[in-house]
Formats: sequence, C-alpha cells, structure tokens
Amino acid sequence: MAKEFVVTPWEVTGEVDYNKLIKEFGTQPLNDELIKKIEKKAGKGHHFLRRKIFFSHRELDILLKEYEQGRKFALYTGRGPSGNTHLGHIIPWMFTKYLQDAFDVPLYFQITDDEKFLLKPNLSLEETNKMGYENALDFIALGFDPKKTFIFVDSDYAKTLYKIAIQIAKKVTGSSARAVFGFTNNTNIGMYFWPAMQAAPCILPSILEGRKVRTLIPAAIDQDPYWRIVRDVAPKLGYPKTAAIHCVFLPALTGPKGKMSTSTGEHSTIFTTDTPEEVKKKVNKYAFSGGKDTLKEHRKKGGNPDIDSSYKWLSFFEEDDRKLKKIYNEYKSGKLLSGEIKQILIEKLNTFLKEHQKKREKARSQLDKFILKD
Amino acid sequence: MAKEFVVTPWEVTGEVDYNKLIKEFGTQPLNDELIKKIEKKAGKGHHFLRRKIFFSHRELDILLKEYEQGRKFALYTGRGPSGNTHLGHIIPWMFTKYLQDAFDVPLYFQITDDEKFLLKPNLSLEETNKMGYENALDFIALGFDPKKTFIFVDSDYAKTLYKIAIQIAKKVTGSSARAVFGFTNNTNIGMYFWPAMQAAPCILPSILEGRKVRTLIPAAIDQDPYWRIVRDVAPKLGYPKTAAIHCVFLPALTGPKGKMSTSTGEHSTIFTTDTPEEVKKKVNKYAFSGGKDTLKEHRKKGGNPDIDSSYKWLSFFEEDDRKLKKIYNEYKSGKLLSGEIKQILIEKLNTFLKEHQKKREKARSQLDKFILKD
Repeated sequence: MAKEFVVTPWEVTGEVDYNKLIKEFGTQPLNDELIKKIEKKAGKGHHFLRRKIFFSHRELDILLKEYEQGRKFALYTGRGPSGNTHLGHIIPWMFTKYLQDAFDVPLYFQITDDEKFLLKPNLSLEETNKMGYENALDFIALGFDPKKTFIFVDSDYAKTLYKIAIQIAKKVTGSSARAVFGFTNNTNIGMYFWPAMQAAPCILPSILEGRKVRTLIPAAIDQDPYWRIVRDVAPKLGYPKTAAIHCVFLPALTGPKGKMSTSTGEHSTIFTTDTPEEVKKKVNKYAFSGGKDTLKEHRKKGGNPDIDSSYKWLSFFEEDDRKLKKIYNEYKSGKLLSGEIKQILIEKLNTFLKEHQKKREKARSQLDKFILKD
Repeated sequence: MAKEFVVTPWEVTGEVDYNKLIKEFGTQPLNDELIKKIEKKAGKGHHFLRRKIFFSHRELDILLKEYEQGRKFALYTGRGPSGNTHLGHIIPWMFTKYLQDAFDVPLYFQITDDEKFLLKPNLSLEETNKMGYENALDFIALGFDPKKTFIFVDSDYAKTLYKIAIQIAKKVTGSSARAVFGFTNNTNIGMYFWPAMQAAPCILPSILEGRKVRTLIPAAIDQDPYWRIVRDVAPKLGYPKTAAIHCVFLPALTGPKGKMSTSTGEHSTIFTTDTPEEVKKKVNKYAFSGGKDTLKEHRKKGGNPDIDSSYKWLSFFEEDDRKLKKIYNEYKSGKLLSGEIKQILIEKLNTFLKEHQKKREKARSQLDKFILKD
C-alpha cells in the first residue's frame, strides 16, 4: 500500500497524519503535563500549545527537569534564505519568542546562506547572503531581546562554525548522510558536508558559554531528521543531546495537502512583505474554500471549516479562542459565508503585517546588535 | 598482470617508474626548453632540474608564456600537519624558494590542520593545529620573503576559505570525489567536502589580488589527482586552470620502494628536528645499502649506487654535480665503502640541519609576519 503522506526534510506531500508521524519518527507527543509546565513558567498560555500546533517533542521533559534544577538551556532555530520570509516560516519563531520570554534563555538563530547556495542551482552566494540578512529582519521584528539573541549567517561566521562542524563531521560517514538526508551520487560535496554545519549550533552555546548547554530546537516536524545525526554525535563529543519541540505545517493557502512553500507557487504563500492588496487578492483568489457551491446550499448545509484554508490559517493567527470558536460554529452552520471568512482572515493578516512591516524596517538599524561575528 | 607500483594521493607502493606515471596521469615531461626558460629567469640552475627530480608538469608552458607577456602567477604549496616535518616534505619547498626568487611572485602556503584532523582517528584539531604552526617554522626557515609569502592554517582562515570552497564544492559531485579521492561509504563527510578546501587556494590569489591569477603548484607527483578537480572547476567559475610542476619522491631511508613517510616507520624518516646523533644512528642503522656483503667483495666488484639509499639521498642534498659524480664513481668502483658513503650523507645532513634548526628557531618570532588572517 502506498503511503498517504510523505514527510522528509526535502519533501512534504499528502495530507499529514501527525499522530502517525510521531510513531514513524519515534518522537514523543507533547502531553498536558509538559504543556502546563511551560505555561506556568511563562505565566500565560499560548494558542499554539492549546491547539496542538506544537504537538511533539524529543527530550523536552529532561530539559525542563534540568531547568528546574537550575541548568539553563539555549534555544536554537534558523532560516534557509532562499527567498522572502513567508508566514509559514514565522510560526516556529513566534513560539520561540514565547519560550525565550518564559525561560529567559539565550537564543541562537542560524541563517544558512551556504546551504541554500549549495542546494539551488540558480542562486549565487551573494544572493543567499543578502537574502539572509533580509530574512533576519523578520525574525528581529518579532521582538527578540538583542542581549540574549544571537544571529549568525553561516558564510560570515564560518571561522567559528567550521571548527565545530569538522568535529561533528569526523563522526558522520558518507553513507549515514545519504540515508538521513537522501543524498545521491549526484549530490554535491558541499551538501554532503553541510549537515555538520547545521548541527554545529547545537554545540556552539556550550563553546561560547564555556559550560555544557543543552539546546532546544523549536521547528516544524519535517526538520526532525536533521537533528538525529547531532543527537547521535553530541554525546560522543561530550555534549548534551539536543532536545526538540515540533510544530505542524501552516498549510498552503491552496489546500490542506503538503506544506506552504514558495516552491509550490507564489499564490500558495503569503510573504511578510506583501501589500494589503496582495494579501486580499491572494486570499480571495487562492484560499481553498470549505464552503458550498451555491449561497443557498451554504446557508442550508453550512461550510466545512476543517478543510477551509481561511479557517485553518485563523487557527494559527487568531489568538482569541472564543472568537475562533465563534467563526468555526458560524461557518459550519452556514451563517458565515466563504467570502466573509476570507474577509476575516484578510483583516487579521493585514493587521498583523502592517505592524510587522513597521517593526521589520525598524530592525534594519538594530541588526548589528544581533549579529555574531568571528 | 598486477601493477608493479601504485601511486595515488593515499598510497605509494612499489618501485615507481616515473616515465610510466607521466603517461598514466596524462602530464607532460619537463623538457629542456622549459628547464632553460626557468634557469634563465633564475640566473642560475638548480640540481633538482638537472637531475630530473622535478620531471613533469601541467601547463607550465602556458604559465611561462603568460609570464613573459607580463602576467604574474602565484605559487601555491602546503603541508598536512600530521607530525613533525621530515626531509621529504621540504624537497618541493626548497624548489619553491628557487621559483619564487626567480620569478618574484607571491606564494601561498596552506596548512591543512582540518584535513589531518578529519583523516587521523587519533589526532585532535588542537594537535593538528599546533603541529601546523610548528611545520610552518620549517617552511619559513628556508628563507622565504614575508612580504610576498602568505601562510594560512585552514581552521584559522576558514571564513575566507569556506566561502571559496563552497563555490568549488557546488560543482563537484559525491561520485567524482569518490572516484578521484578513493572515498568510500565509510569516509566521513568532512573528508567528502575537504577536496574543496584544498582547491580553494587555487582561487584565493585571484580574490585577494583582484585579478585573474594562475597558480603554479610545485608538489610531489602523487598529489596530482587532487588538482584534477580544481582544474576542471576553476574555468567554470571564471578562473584560470592551475598549473603544476611535479617532483619524484625522496625514497625511504630503508629502501627504494614507496615514498618516505612517517607512517612507514620513524626509522625510514629523518625529521628536521632530529639531533646529529639521531641522524647518525638512523643512517648507519637503516639506510639501505647497495654495497656488497663483504669488504673483499665490495673492493673487488664495487657497490650499486642506483639502489643505495645514501647515494639516492645525496642526489637530493649534494648540490655539487662533480662531488656527486665522484661519489657515484668511487662507490661503483668499490673504492668508497658503504660505511663511508653513509658517513658522507650523515655529514651532509647534519651540516644542513644544524643551519636549518637555527633558522627554524629564529622563525618563531617571524611567524606573525607570514600568517594570513580572516
């Protein structure tokens, strides 16, 4: 029997069954006890937790126990700068902000201009490097504290990273890289090495802080295989295993299959730099609708919010549970029309983006305060 | 039929037929016309040229033609710091000094602490890095001009090198690295990438000098395959193909097969830091003799200088052709005994090493003047 969905770091297709994925990847479900621990420390809940948008983890329990015993961890996330930041990218970053505020820990943000250059035939290193600093603005715009947030662009921080990466690389054979990352005979030798560069920030905090620091990676679940190698290697080098907390994908605007990605077409994606008109046009034109074919039928039978992209997106961006529930019920009953739920999403996104774009421009002058240099 | 000798970057065994090697590798023999051109420019000959110790090249003719038209090239050689420098290492360096004096060109010297760390299970990066700077002293001791000689240790110059290396790496597939470098499934991913780090200095001069600079690599012939990849890739990136000039191996003290290498045993090797007593002991005890079994027989039939390690070594270290010829003839006639030719070599080496060790210690305070930093 063919699998109904595929999730690897390089391919996400089909309608993902996240419970099956937990079993397949061998991760742990994010249980109520852990959620309560986080919320208690944060002093407030997060709709990403309540709605199981973050739903899985590796060794978060151990990390939180250590934290309670006084051992601070470090957060690590990042961005592959192959184009503009879209809303799918910032989901884990928003949650990372919540975690940093809750636990008051340092945060390392890797921008992988080298990877995107090596991976994309048509991109130059200059282009991915420039795009990396642009993407960093979106990250800073979310309100991170420069005193404890450290951003680095691989090719500009290579002196530090390369020394760490070769320690990791020495412990990883060509054949494990092929198995974990899907490399073939035709994969270039830069990509063969690159998993070690991506693993390096799991060890970087220990080196910079001069103590054994466990890292916690908030990221979409498809990135999990990347950390299997470093979880295997870190203890061999005398460092703690990396912990992870995984989120689901923001679905493509065009429907619930796969994940939102620029490579599936610009219309399936909303960028942080889109104008209000672009957002309006994309949502109206491309957002997959769970509504009925005719107004009459919709009023009578109601829409299906569970497959409606606008509703799905609102479950990520509308923080107020009551408002969201109301939208769900009214759409399901037929009171709310497809055009109307789209309008609610458009307003929600444009309100967010107006503020974000202001902060994003302000971030240009703050960039230097965040950037780690060799 | 099994091959009588094997020459790859990772294996040299058997008695090497250098003429066969030229055909096998597809290089060009170093002909009299080229030798004359070099000697004319240098204003003096070199016994490594006269004695065909440098015997093969790639596109040296093109490089010299460009030089005559006013385009300066750059020299590039290096050292893999897995241990102390031995006399086999400094043979190409001595000739590099002659070439730099002759052509007044910049010289780049790469110390590959990353490679030796990745390659040797028991060496730490700290160890190879430290050894790298020790090895650099031997290079500086040969009298290079700090104004035009640039030494860099890979892990300490990684910011610059990594950016260049990934440009190269993007054009090299895993399978070509396997074919050229003999990598297997078990080779670590650091080594998979490393050929790009070794190729980077072929392009570095163009970047630092802001013009298209062809490099010339003086090295032992077994290193040639390493440059095939960069000769293929450099033109694709808009840089000139690297030229090369190849030397034979200084044979092991213990006999004419293979090349001198620390890995074949310390007794087959003389280090630049050996004491006069160690040199004496090693030559007397281990130098393979072409002499006869008894004094009577030796006096009667004479020795065989062509297989005698002491004579072979004198052909590298005794610059005076007449003296060397005299030794050859007297050994062959039986006038010179095995113990006596060993004594000549011991004196020659110890005279050289006494001076070298003085300069080597003096080089410690000059090191900073030579080191390239990111």
